[in-house]
Amino acid sequence: MTSNSQKTIALVVRQNTAGIEEQVAGIVAFLQDAGYRVVFEAETARHVQAGGVASMSAQEIGEHASYAVVMGGDGTMLGIARQLAKYEVPLIGINQGRLGFITDIPIERMLPALGEILAGNATAEQRTLLEGRVMRDGAMIFCGMAVNDVVVARGTGAGMAELKVTVDGQFMYNQRSDGLIITTPTGSTAYALSAGGPLLHPSVRGIALVPIAPHALSNRPIVIPDQSEIVIEIVNGRDISVNFDMQTFASLQHGDEIAISRSPHSITFLHPKEWSYYGTLREKLHWNEYPSSDGKLK
Amino acid sequence: MTSNSQKTIALVVRQNTAGIEEQVAGIVAFLQDAGYRVVFEAETARHVQAGGVASMSAQEIGEHASYAVVMGGDGTMLGIARQLAKYEVPLIGINQGRLGFITDIPIERMLPALGEILAGNATAEQRTLLEGRVMRDGAMIFCGMAVNDVVVARGTGAGMAELKVTVDGQFMYNQRSDGLIITTPTGSTAYALSAGGPLLHPSVRGIALVPIAPHALSNRPIVIPDQSEIVIEIVNGRDISVNFDMQTFASLQHGDEIAISRSPHSITFLHPKEWSYYGTLREKLHWNEYPSSDGKLK
Amino acid sequence: MTSNSQKTIALVVRQNTAGIEEQVAGIVAFLQDAGYRVVFEAETARHVQAGGVASMSAQEIGEHASYAVVMGGDGTMLGIARQLAKYEVPLIGINQGRLGFITDIPIERMLPALGEILAGNATAEQRTLLEGRVMRDGAMIFCGMAVNDVVVARGTGAGMAELKVTVDGQFMYNQRSDGLIITTPTGSTAYALSAGGPLLHPSVRGIALVPIAPHALSNRPIVIPDQSEIVIEIVNGRDISVNFDMQTFASLQHGDEIAISRSPHSITFLHPKEWSYYGTLREKLHWNEYPSSDGKLK
Amino acid sequence: MTSNSQKTIALVVRQNTAGIEEQVAGIVAFLQDAGYRVVFEAETARHVQAGGVASMSAQEIGEHASYAVVMGGDGTMLGIARQLAKYEVPLIGINQGRLGFITDIPIERMLPALGEILAGNATAEQRTLLEGRVMRDGAMIFCGMAVNDVVVARGTGAGMAELKVTVDGQFMYNQRSDGLIITTPTGSTAYALSAGGPLLHPSVRGIALVPIAPHALSNRPIVIPDQSEIVIEIVNGRDISVNFDMQTFASLQHGDEIAISRSPHSITFLHPKEWSYYGTLREKLHWNEYPSSDGKLK
Repeated sequence: MTSNSQKTIALVVRQNTAGIEEQVAGIVAFLQDAGYRVVFEAETARHVQAGGVASMSAQEIGEHASYAVVMGGDGTMLGIARQLAKYEVPLIGINQGRLGFITDIPIERMLPALGEILAGNATAEQRTLLEGRVMRDGAMIFCGMAVNDVVVARGTGAGMAELKVTVDGQFMYNQRSDGLIITTPTGSTAYALSAGGPLLHPSVRGIALVPIAPHALSNRPIVIPDQSEIVIEIVNGRDISVNFDMQTFASLQHGDEIAISRSPHSITFLHPKEWSYYGTLREKLHWNEYPSSDGKLK
Repeated sequence: MTSNSQKTIALVVRQNTAGIEEQVAGIVAFLQDAGYRVVFEAETARHVQAGGVASMSAQEIGEHASYAVVMGGDGTMLGIARQLAKYEVPLIGINQGRLGFITDIPIERMLPALGEILAGNATAEQRTLLEGRVMRDGAMIFCGMAVNDVVVARGTGAGMAELKVTVDGQFMYNQRSDGLIITTPTGSTAYALSAGGPLLHPSVRGIALVPIAPHALSNRPIVIPDQSEIVIEIVNGRDISVNFDMQTFASLQHGDEIAISRSPHSITFLHPKEWSYYGTLREKLHWNEYPSSDGKLK
Repeated sequence: MTSNSQKTIALVVRQNTAGIEEQVAGIVAFLQDAGYRVVFEAETARHVQAGGVASMSAQEIGEHASYAVVMGGDGTMLGIARQLAKYEVPLIGINQGRLGFITDIPIERMLPALGEILAGNATAEQRTLLEGRVMRDGAMIFCGMAVNDVVVARGTGAGMAELKVTVDGQFMYNQRSDGLIITTPTGSTAYALSAGGPLLHPSVRGIALVPIAPHALSNRPIVIPDQSEIVIEIVNGRDISVNFDMQTFASLQHGDEIAISRSPHSITFLHPKEWSYYGTLREKLHWNEYPSSDGKLK
Repeated sequence: MTSNSQKTIALVVRQNTAGIEEQVAGIVAFLQDAGYRVVFEAETARHVQAGGVASMSAQEIGEHASYAVVMGGDGTMLGIARQLAKYEVPLIGINQGRLGFITDIPIERMLPALGEILAGNATAEQRTLLEGRVMRDGAMIFCGMAVNDVVVARGTGAGMAELKVTVDGQFMYNQRSDGLIITTPTGSTAYALSAGGPLLHPSVRGIALVPIAPHALSNRPIVIPDQSEIVIEIVNGRDISVNFDMQTFASLQHGDEIAISRSPHSITFLHPKEWSYYGTLREKLHWNEYPSSDGKLK
């Protein structure tokens, strides 16, 4: 109790989630009983009613909290993870619905799972992030971070985008497509997977470039080392923009360059001890639904 | 000569094509010498200088011309083919650059090829078209035709689109994706191919539904009979629009329905006798670059 | 009762299925009560114990039976469907485990479903078959039929196969790959789907050619009209064979040609009235597991 | 000259290559003139006539040669690279036909390119190898190395293979497919690419698992760290074997386990200074054939 009494835990809860109040109250009580100081992230404080719980901005959480507990889906986690990345606050994800790839504790098990994790009985896992800077006429006009992916893509109704891709100063190709996804291992199970990209284990030190509907059938997904710097120049196309985790974005013009590289920061996810990356893949991708004994013909 | 003197041939030429004047003059002279009346499509007349050649609207061409000769790329052909479809004017395609899938006569061979085709020494080929109507609150707010494809897709920066697809009154699925391509066999070598769709031989009586970056990995391209009526309802997503051949489009709202079916009209392409569909595929898709004898290891 | 008393129904049951006896006895009693004469297919008679039920060869069933009821998986159905195709005996498929694509009646509902179907309250559906003939030095050395697919493929440990493909006398390509799947719409949900082929609705009059791991990335699946004749010549590769529904096969040599075309026969499946092709796809391909309301980020 | 006189260069030449003698003689003379001792690899010595050139086994080359120059295609290079891996002899690849991925010097430029490389004006590049051990009843019955890939696959005519895959002791999945390709970055442009795998830059420390025609559509290629140990157990299927670079193989039984991990050795390729990995991809995958200015419609 004494040791915990110094520690602050921040709660981040997805908006517009019917019936979440009771679950939140349960977590707050559980953590306070365990001696932690509990605070709400500012946005959460605005939509969750809970008497006597203080509110903190993301920056304050970063500076003061020992853990952030995220209740919601993968989207909620992405949003807060980007903001907390530079403070290296470990993140614990609780999913209210179907389990996510990065919010892996089911709400029914949240209290015992939290108890175990906070007791140190956890699997800690590092995830890389990307940073992107948009350069126009030599000046940076936008920058952003991404836990999942940086996506450069054309708008609807526009013709193909043409993107010139350079890696570490070496010309890769001019690609004509709907766009290009630059993904971390974390993002390899998200949009990039839909676009035909490979799964990347979180500890692979790689970044995948996954074209969206490329004109050239041989413009296949390619994995490069995560210390690479990727520069994407907008050569042609209308209504092109760059998105970070599909949550923040900037509109682009011909000649703009987006420079993307691994962030010096990384994210730490805390999982229950029995958590397994391959287990999550099996669950989320239905790998376990093709048993050996079903007698089905190929 | 006498029989040809009754016949009108319309010329449709792509804009902004350096040095095309001379080629056009050559075709005009060749056709006039052969006894045909040559006219320019109205848009062409505005940008090509050629003394003494009359101009006609697409409607007039449809009503009066025996043939339309298209000089440009596949895009130029798509534009005029949609307009002439209901008049059933046969189309002859000349490509100034790299051969297209549907503009298959190289400019170097255009005069002898035209001569042969007009002499009846041609392969005639029918292509189907699609019609699409956008329904909102029971009223049709837009309609269009497509030689290649009807594409319902989200804009950049928007989350996934959710589309409810019904075929002949039977529910197919709710699909979450960047969008859905409904393609004719002609369009199967265009955008749909980039998105992972199959090639469809022009005489297959089918329409392919090809999802763009679908969330569910099992939302695979599906080919249905071309007498089907497909209805796509916009269930979710922002900034969604429908495009016809990526050339005309309408913005959509939740609840809008796009009803797509085969047009009662069809297009006739005239090819030189030696033309071969598979030959075009080999050429365009580089199928011929993997010879048996190259000694390459797998 | 009187009308049914003339009619024979054949039962075909998968081998090695624990606990099937009781289910079979239930069906036999149900059909006999309804006035039908029930017989076992010869193979079934050998492994199912049921007193007083006569046995018939596939040929006799073809000549005498009004229906064949198949209990097993899709593989059992394929085997008997090929044998009965030329007799046009309608087939009814009951699946003991997870539903199949073509054995669509769950064993729990078999009696009421059979009752409805035999009362004429059924959806009848035609499926095409393929015929293949292997020619060597001008003589036919093997022939077979396929409900799903004809597969020409290399053996393990051998280098790539090189296959020359000709359609209706027109050269398509020389393809280097693990092999080539020629599939009916029925087979488009089987092996061809695993190899990247499109789904083909059963009433599309098409045949898909789906390469297995092709060397050229642009050797994409192609759908051609089902009145086409496809000829595949073995140009190169070791240990190559042709398989029909992965159930019968022949070993091939360089220079052998396999000629494949649609069979003049077709198969009739009888489904319960509420059966829906798209419903089967949704069920088998898990299309229904991505609800609109899960709040998941893309 | 004096310093070179101590150095031995081994020549490895592909068999059955018409007109190679003269080229070989040219290289021998060029290298001898430069003061090197030139030897033939034993197999090469058997089929190439060249007076006065000594012959060495792969082992002797490994122990004595400073470089090995390989004339042939990628297959020739794979064969010798596996044998020389443990000796860490740098390899230089000359291609007689169309350039390979790892034999990147065109025969027309071989003498100046060799001159530059031997003068130290070279790009050295490390490539990882895989080792595989087949375990049966606790004993190792086979082992092999692979520069490209280890492939566990079923034979033709057999049903699907079922493979249980474990990584670092963690269960990944039971996979039903034609087989599974375990590929290095070097192999990612070979068989794995045909089977749908991603490209892996040679300096990515990863291994890709690429299923061949998997039954479950969500069994997508996955990249894992190259320090992983992968164990594949044969659960089901007939006529299954394991191949190393498609050049050596062993037949497998149910219950056999193949343990695959990165070799402690690696290969060094020497390229001309101007060589570029992305340049090779552009050339081999025809990325450069879709210029910006072709005016083609999407």
